Amino acid sequence: MTTISFARGVPAPECLPVSELAEAARAAIERDGHAALSYGAAFGYPPLREWIAERHGVAPERVLVTNGSLQGFVFLAQHLVAGGPARVLVEAPTYDRPLKILAARGAEVTAVPMDDEGLDLDALERALAGGQTPSLLYTIPTFQNPSGRTLSPARRRRLAGLIREHDLLVLEDDPYGLVRFEGTAPPLLFDLDGGERVIYSSSFSKTIAPGVRVGYMILPERLVVPLEAVVVSTYISPSFLAEATVHEFVVRGLFEPNVERVRGLLRARRDAMLESLESSFGEGVEWSRPEGGYFVWLDLPPGTDAAALLAKATAAGVPFVKGSDFFPGGRGGESSARLAFSYVSPDEIREGIARLAGLVPEAAVSVARP
Amino acid sequence: MTTISFARGVPAPECLPVSELAEAARAAIERDGHAALSYGAAFGYPPLREWIAERHGVAPERVLVTNGSLQGFVFLAQHLVAGGPARVLVEAPTYDRPLKILAARGAEVTAVPMDDEGLDLDALERALAGGQTPSLLYTIPTFQNPSGRTLSPARRRRLAGLIREHDLLVLEDDPYGLVRFEGTAPPLLFDLDGGERVIYSSSFSKTIAPGVRVGYMILPERLVVPLEAVVVSTYISPSFLAEATVHEFVVRGLFEPNVERVRGLLRARRDAMLESLESSFGEGVEWSRPEGGYFVWLDLPPGTDAAALLAKATAAGVPFVKGSDFFPGGRGGESSARLAFSYVSPDEIREGIARLAGLVPEAAVSVARP
Repeated sequence: MTTISFARGVPAPECLPVSELAEAARAAIERDGHAALSYGAAFGYPPLREWIAERHGVAPERVLVTNGSLQGFVFLAQHLVAGGPARVLVEAPTYDRPLKILAARGAEVTAVPMDDEGLDLDALERALAGGQTPSLLYTIPTFQNPSGRTLSPARRRRLAGLIREHDLLVLEDDPYGLVRFEGTAPPLLFDLDGGERVIYSSSFSKTIAPGVRVGYMILPERLVVPLEAVVVSTYISPSFLAEATVHEFVVRGLFEPNVERVRGLLRARRDAMLESLESSFGEGVEWSRPEGGYFVWLDLPPGTDAAALLAKATAAGVPFVKGSDFFPGGRGGESSARLAFSYVSPDEIREGIARLAGLVPEAAVSVARP
Repeated sequence: MTTISFARGVPAPECLPVSELAEAARAAIERDGHAALSYGAAFGYPPLREWIAERHGVAPERVLVTNGSLQGFVFLAQHLVAGGPARVLVEAPTYDRPLKILAARGAEVTAVPMDDEGLDLDALERALAGGQTPSLLYTIPTFQNPSGRTLSPARRRRLAGLIREHDLLVLEDDPYGLVRFEGTAPPLLFDLDGGERVIYSSSFSKTIAPGVRVGYMILPERLVVPLEAVVVSTYISPSFLAEATVHEFVVRGLFEPNVERVRGLLRARRDAMLESLESSFGEGVEWSRPEGGYFVWLDLPPGTDAAALLAKATAAGVPFVKGSDFFPGGRGGESSARLAFSYVSPDEIREGIARLAGLVPEAAVSVARP
């Protein structure tokens, strides 16, 4: 029995533009080898910074390119804790690696709940009421990891108001935004805010390839100098080889066509997963219906032990990530699961979901099927 | 007047194997694109880890490949300070970036003096006498940055004994060891110690190209698990694109010929610098005579203010790095300078040293030259 992994939040191999990147790497080094192969600016390969800056309508000085966007998160976390105790608000659930990074650096983390429309802003208001303004709100507003949820346009506008009112620093992490299969993209918090208090973060992991490890942040002007101090106390410069390769890829006009191709590949996977969930699970089971990204969030009937199910599912070759991994301190999501549809094929998804449903008899569809 | 930089401790452009790397990058991606372009093991691209492990006669599990060797230093520093207050012994002078990394993470740094044969082991013994064993000794035993000095074979054997006696953890940072122009390489501390208490660190920055940002550490077995915990709280994986490119370069048999080529290019520069110093500076000025590496350390007559000289030298287009930058807290090296011969051509070196000597009239040769 082959393993069908719903755990791996990584692109399927066919999403990777292998031969285009091979040629881009060669050409980038041939064309600008002396810059691409040496040390350089701490904030990254200047031509790539300029390309990113132009896309977002900002000065290139505000663009910090890092070895993957998580490295930018580490830099920001180090900056926040350097000034004394730091309190960070996060969505519950949220991406688990930032939780580990914050914990390892001693930040205090406060969970703010979500619903189907994204972050619960009433709960956020309560968290902001009285006391000191937190150091940061960390949010993934679009096709969130792990929930697949997207913050609605109305909530984005209300959140932008709260950010201004409380002078709240926000990290808008947006690796999945361009991987949209349908519908209209809501406005970025970064744009609603004008980039004063909202840091925008994204990467080329989902739009080109994760192995290039090229992510970026657009910083409010006042954070450029403090973050530079953190960066230069970590490395001389990031991988210019990788950044020059990404730059060559985008200036060759390969970026938009590749994103469109990836959208098609992942749309078919998302469709297969939603259809399979519909046909395999009955009442009492709920799931998110994302218009893009990599993930569906599955809420099993209350009382279901997702950790115990995971053990059975792993034995049955259909691993997922249990919901509690995405809550600070593991408090929450005990009956939930993150299902990644990004890595496996539509056929595998259909087989895998059926296999998974068979492990939750009380949740399977009650209608007998032929 | 063109600038002749003795400040830049980077390889001259002609040291970079541009077309070979361009072809290696293309071939690496074509051959193993699905691995090279995706996420992977936190400790790096497995084929490269295996190649490094074989060179050093260790198990691949002990090899940690990072985005440049400084990132490995950051990981080690984080591990050391995570366990409580950390005291680190360093050579005085020493490479300035590790000093910044240690300071930013709150480690206590104790300077141990050097002489022409490298670290002063009597002073080290005094630092080790009584009190708690320090968390780490950081040393660059061969062609040290900034001094160009090399720890003598006799001292290496004595140091290995002290390491054992005091159960002292040591980081042997060896980026320059292979860039040897003449003479015989002394034994590595790592080999003398058997790799139990000595971590060996090196990189491909000086032997291939800095822009690939690929460095590595060979860890004592007991540090593998703790360091992995630090790594996974920082990133998913390092740049597999860069690591696969380096791997392709070495398995194509390009590594040794490239190192030999770089040795020839840098030997001519070292020779030009030593000859120029000899003909331009008189009594009261001393300098190191390295058999390899990138740097010469210049001791000007006592009382000379290297910071004031640097201001004049920068205005005259011959910048260097002042000695005090390489001492913890800037305490030391006030009359010294680090001169990098790696970046500029032999002709530029001759002109630059003459220009520099002209700024130190009291130290210039007293014999009138035509």
